[in-house]
Amino acid sequence: MIASTAPPTIRVTVWNEFRHERANPRVAAIYPQGMHQTIADALGRDADLSVRTATLDEPEHGLTDAVLEQTDVLIWWGHMAHAEVADAVVAKVRRRVHEGMGLIVLHSAHYSKIFKSLMGDTCSLSWREASDKERLWVVCPGHPIVRGIGPFIELPVEEMYGEPFGIPTPDELVFISWFTGGEVFRSGATWRRGHGRVFYFRPGHETYPTYHNPQIQQVIANGVRWAHTGLRIQDDAPNVAALEPLPADPDAAHRSTVSHV
Amino acid sequence: MIASTAPPTIRVTVWNEFRHERANPRVAAIYPQGMHQTIADALGRDADLSVRTATLDEPEHGLTDAVLEQTDVLIWWGHMAHAEVADAVVAKVRRRVHEGMGLIVLHSAHYSKIFKSLMGDTCSLSWREASDKERLWVVCPGHPIVRGIGPFIELPVEEMYGEPFGIPTPDELVFISWFTGGEVFRSGATWRRGHGRVFYFRPGHETYPTYHNPQIQQVIANGVRWAHTGLRIQDDAPNVAALEPLPADPDAAHRSTVSHV
Amino acid sequence: MIASTAPPTIRVTVWNEFRHERANPRVAAIYPQGMHQTIADALGRDADLSVRTATLDEPEHGLTDAVLEQTDVLIWWGHMAHAEVADAVVAKVRRRVHEGMGLIVLHSAHYSKIFKSLMGDTCSLSWREASDKERLWVVCPGHPIVRGIGPFIELPVEEMYGEPFGIPTPDELVFISWFTGGEVFRSGATWRRGHGRVFYFRPGHETYPTYHNPQIQQVIANGVRWAHTGLRIQDDAPNVAALEPLPADPDAAHRSTVSHV
Amino acid sequence: MIASTAPPTIRVTVWNEFRHERANPRVAAIYPQGMHQTIADALGRDADLSVRTATLDEPEHGLTDAVLEQTDVLIWWGHMAHAEVADAVVAKVRRRVHEGMGLIVLHSAHYSKIFKSLMGDTCSLSWREASDKERLWVVCPGHPIVRGIGPFIELPVEEMYGEPFGIPTPDELVFISWFTGGEVFRSGATWRRGHGRVFYFRPGHETYPTYHNPQIQQVIANGVRWAHTGLRIQDDAPNVAALEPLPADPDAAHRSTVSHV
Repeated sequence: MIASTAPPTIRVTVWNEFRHERANPRVAAIYPQGMHQTIADALGRDADLSVRTATLDEPEHGLTDAVLEQTDVLIWWGHMAHAEVADAVVAKVRRRVHEGMGLIVLHSAHYSKIFKSLMGDTCSLSWREASDKERLWVVCPGHPIVRGIGPFIELPVEEMYGEPFGIPTPDELVFISWFTGGEVFRSGATWRRGHGRVFYFRPGHETYPTYHNPQIQQVIANGVRWAHTGLRIQDDAPNVAALEPLPADPDAAHRSTVSHV
Repeated sequence: MIASTAPPTIRVTVWNEFRHERANPRVAAIYPQGMHQTIADALGRDADLSVRTATLDEPEHGLTDAVLEQTDVLIWWGHMAHAEVADAVVAKVRRRVHEGMGLIVLHSAHYSKIFKSLMGDTCSLSWREASDKERLWVVCPGHPIVRGIGPFIELPVEEMYGEPFGIPTPDELVFISWFTGGEVFRSGATWRRGHGRVFYFRPGHETYPTYHNPQIQQVIANGVRWAHTGLRIQDDAPNVAALEPLPADPDAAHRSTVSHV
Repeated sequence: MIASTAPPTIRVTVWNEFRHERANPRVAAIYPQGMHQTIADALGRDADLSVRTATLDEPEHGLTDAVLEQTDVLIWWGHMAHAEVADAVVAKVRRRVHEGMGLIVLHSAHYSKIFKSLMGDTCSLSWREASDKERLWVVCPGHPIVRGIGPFIELPVEEMYGEPFGIPTPDELVFISWFTGGEVFRSGATWRRGHGRVFYFRPGHETYPTYHNPQIQQVIANGVRWAHTGLRIQDDAPNVAALEPLPADPDAAHRSTVSHV
Repeated sequence: MIASTAPPTIRVTVWNEFRHERANPRVAAIYPQGMHQTIADALGRDADLSVRTATLDEPEHGLTDAVLEQTDVLIWWGHMAHAEVADAVVAKVRRRVHEGMGLIVLHSAHYSKIFKSLMGDTCSLSWREASDKERLWVVCPGHPIVRGIGPFIELPVEEMYGEPFGIPTPDELVFISWFTGGEVFRSGATWRRGHGRVFYFRPGHETYPTYHNPQIQQVIANGVRWAHTGLRIQDDAPNVAALEPLPADPDAAHRSTVSHV
């Protein structure tokens, strides 16, 4: 049998659009080196995680084949420039998820090409930038993503996202948020796609210090470990031989010659 | 209250690639006017269904805005020419599903652009054209899609599709198939996407008379009624006002001016 | 094929503990004839519904074999006397659900024997009787249970129920509630059990006029139609013959003589 | 943050009815010390598992409070004597599952009191003792329960179980079985109940050497690790104070004095 062993090092890439931080002094004041760096610094304190970053304006958005090859879990933050992400990069990320890479989708990346492509849904929601408090309630207390988190996380000010959220039925619903203004939102949810795992986690508007919050950092770290499958399985649609005897096939000579794939 | 009323007429469009039937005399012998016509004729016998057809080689693949506007449920069969379906048409069909249109995806259309786009998954499977019998077991006996169907449907010869099938967890698993050669397959499954409903139904290889089978016809007719939502809701991501009092917002002057959508 | 026909009459039984109304003048002032009668009166205005009531202190709790035989959908409200419901009656109701009867579980009946028995879970939650407003958000806008309901239902005062709610993953999550005091709750959810359908719907504390609210009445009526399966299928564990040839069985003489069931 | 550490020792109790082995020489020949001992021996070879056994005819069925206290994952095999399991023991096991204990339910234990109690469903199926081969197909290839297992497991002879299987929608469907005689079955499935995890795994008729099969042993060992939550959370229905300001409550004096629980 396969016995459990020491946990492997998980290779994490934190991807960020990194535009707000350079354009808006208020955002820069909170995240001087970008949200990706704040998240990477937090994750990097854990011995089992090996963390790098990548951003939109790097060549190939920083997601070269080599980087993607060496990424077990990808974290994604985007907002104002979803349309600038090259379709070819999205296709590569999608293929890696199907092969077994984990993907953690943060906040406004609900509208990223990669998330919409993996969900097949509108991913729409209602929203408001005001002075709402957000309280994220744990609705799946035994889930590894909420390890070390109490009954809820409270964020003093956050952008509001409201239902209905245009997503497929989650495999697991982990958080539901309450907002001062009267709305609710499914703010933590998971899905499998191919051999990969996807975790959407709502908080993180650029004008608030959300990614400095230790509980938010903990959920992201937990999410990384949960999303890490260790798998790398190429997609395939094999033409297979029968495992049991078949009756004689009088039509064999007439079989379609069109490949299935 | 809203009382139930007589069932509405459901407007169905049966879409078919319609290439095998014109290229392969064996297929033409089974479906002289195309598989779409066989399916449409069967559905057309039901008083509550109003049926039209559309095919790949018509202008806009027969799926003009006018046709899609007047379609409540779309049935899709494709195989050898998935790549020839225009991306713009796929985008329109996808939008209509999100608005509430039903979609029934048949057999080799598991690899159609529209199904892959709505699933976000590989949609891969193993396969074999041989002399397998297929027996589709009903695993959700109370589901409206199997109304009038007994414990299983038996097809004397069909192409084999085998697990693993690269699909998201179905909202409902309706059929599981047994094949002579030793494989199994989740052969009937449903998902919601946006306000629309999607039903994948496996049988229907072009070289067999599957769509002449009354039970298969019944499942498709049941599927049409199940997939009919009567909804037409435009996608939207509204910026909404609070429903409850908010604290004063000292940051209002600094709000992002980037539209969320 | 089976064509759709005019909707059948659905036979509804509204069951109520009917203790608070007789013990507490404040409750009696709101529901002089009991909550069951208010709900039954509302449903009875719909031509396709045939409604009766039953209460705890009637013989057999009003749920004789004859009543259960003639019930397509059972609605259940209980709170202070769950323990007084006879186990034999619970077993009969459970059997009827498995055969295809619908069950709508209201408010504090989350802790009823029948609901706990069908869920297999704790069904626990946190709670508060205070001055919370409840806003029930529709998170599954195309669902038949929310037909005619807008984006949310607002109840000026209700008891608070908070997460985590100890239920199995719902087949469908229909409503999530927001409460003034800062909590959220999965307040409308569905499950299949056997051939039957179960809908849990949260609102309805006895000291508030919730069941006089037209939207709440509409959801219950929608729920009745959704939960009506028209099925009556006895449970069975048949010993079945093979459908395909088996190899010779050298062990036949040694087969266990213990019946499987 | 919480960093991952070396895997904990998981305390496993293998429970067996242990009647067939003592009554039927053919079963005794395969499992001289009982199926529980064969399973325990296999699990005991893994350094991270600490294994004990318990059987029906021991006092309290071997499941004293002390044993249950020290059990992280319970494995259950029963068949001919389900009715002899004391309801009080079933209630204790159920409570432990809700608190976070894992439960692995094998083969004919689909009809055990504990499984039926946790599922809330009929748990019925069709069956045949003959000479069927069983092939268990992995339909969720990335799942930890199938770590080290290839595309399928083949068992030369097994009892047949056929659909429909009267279970709630699984959280995860892991295996689907093919049988020679023409049937299929959802033979590996998982659910959460309370804070605990439940895995049903079909194979293991007493007259076949199934539990000597290394792949079957591997799946059970994987299942133990998957089902181990490390949680111990008492059920509770707390009356909680509001987290946000509430409007004044004119009705406070009239609040029900009936405890919610």
